[in-house]
Amino acid sequence: MLGSVIIDRLVTALRCLPGVGPKSAQRMALHLLERNRERGRQLAAALLDAMDQVGHCHLCRTLTELPVCRICASEKRNRSLLCVVETPADAAAIEQGTDYRGLYFVLLGHLSPLDGIGPEALGLDVLARRLHDEDLAEVIIATSSTVEGEATAHYVSEIVRQHGVRVTRIAYGIPLGGELEFTDSGTLTHALSGRREFGESP
Amino acid sequence: MLGSVIIDRLVTALRCLPGVGPKSAQRMALHLLERNRERGRQLAAALLDAMDQVGHCHLCRTLTELPVCRICASEKRNRSLLCVVETPADAAAIEQGTDYRGLYFVLLGHLSPLDGIGPEALGLDVLARRLHDEDLAEVIIATSSTVEGEATAHYVSEIVRQHGVRVTRIAYGIPLGGELEFTDSGTLTHALSGRREFGESP
Repeated sequence: MLGSVIIDRLVTALRCLPGVGPKSAQRMALHLLERNRERGRQLAAALLDAMDQVGHCHLCRTLTELPVCRICASEKRNRSLLCVVETPADAAAIEQGTDYRGLYFVLLGHLSPLDGIGPEALGLDVLARRLHDEDLAEVIIATSSTVEGEATAHYVSEIVRQHGVRVTRIAYGIPLGGELEFTDSGTLTHALSGRREFGESP
Repeated sequence: MLGSVIIDRLVTALRCLPGVGPKSAQRMALHLLERNRERGRQLAAALLDAMDQVGHCHLCRTLTELPVCRICASEKRNRSLLCVVETPADAAAIEQGTDYRGLYFVLLGHLSPLDGIGPEALGLDVLARRLHDEDLAEVIIATSSTVEGEATAHYVSEIVRQHGVRVTRIAYGIPLGGELEFTDSGTLTHALSGRREFGESP
């Protein structure tokens, strides 16, 4: 299109980024080539490092380059509280927006039988082992308030109850149908502090 | 923030892309890590190839990995017509949106004395040499209709006139104050065919 195979390939590759269409991709490619080659190289190096070195925390399954992530390894956290979220971005939203200082468990998705995502894919065996091995006082379920998030919450709550651990759900302060990741911190704090026993009417 | 130095570095690096803020960068990083590692590696490879191998065409100064770009090397182009544009994206817009089949000359910017961008930075010495060496019948000036684009057009037109070559300016079909790169192809075609002698009143 611009008569360069290499630039065309870069434009195509940039479109793997979410929210980037053909025009944005072209603008990004030309911006880097014309003004910012060094930062383009740094981006390539950061991408390779991340794609090759980032794995999952053995305890909470969040994305990290360490065997056990910093939060799970920290001695300052309340180890009797466990918050179950769908994605690392959800954990980051709670971490940044509230004063929660317990541990996390990241499902890396939600139950979706039609897409073949069952309990094993969400690491619920790992969660069950932790419930058995660790001295947890409460599990807070903070999946999104979507249909799949609710179904997942229900399924997880059953597992927690089987281990005799108190299970709570963050309050419906968050907008119905909304995604947890994009909720403001005030609403998130409210939802955390207003959590209720699973199954209890509001 | 997510407790991972490598992910933080990737999020920071992604912000070098135009139009990408902290939230988008985090979303992009997590999207690649969770779902698309192979395409993330392909993006890194495409970035490195482009940053290291893409240079400028010796004739028209557009971005290309070849010594002379495909358009300048093509035997199918009308070699007596030369269209002067500010950026490779502008050349691409004309190429995609109109039936122009002459050659291009890419200034890679516009005159901007306050930013230290003078005639040399725009390769006007290369243009003067081409005007002397080649058998050009007409130079079409297609800089943007911004203040800097107009000033650049005037400066370039003087150089072309000194070589006794006809010089034209694309018509004011394009919206005033607008950027050429984002003009629709109908307006671009109209502007090209309605070009007029430089200095002539509309």
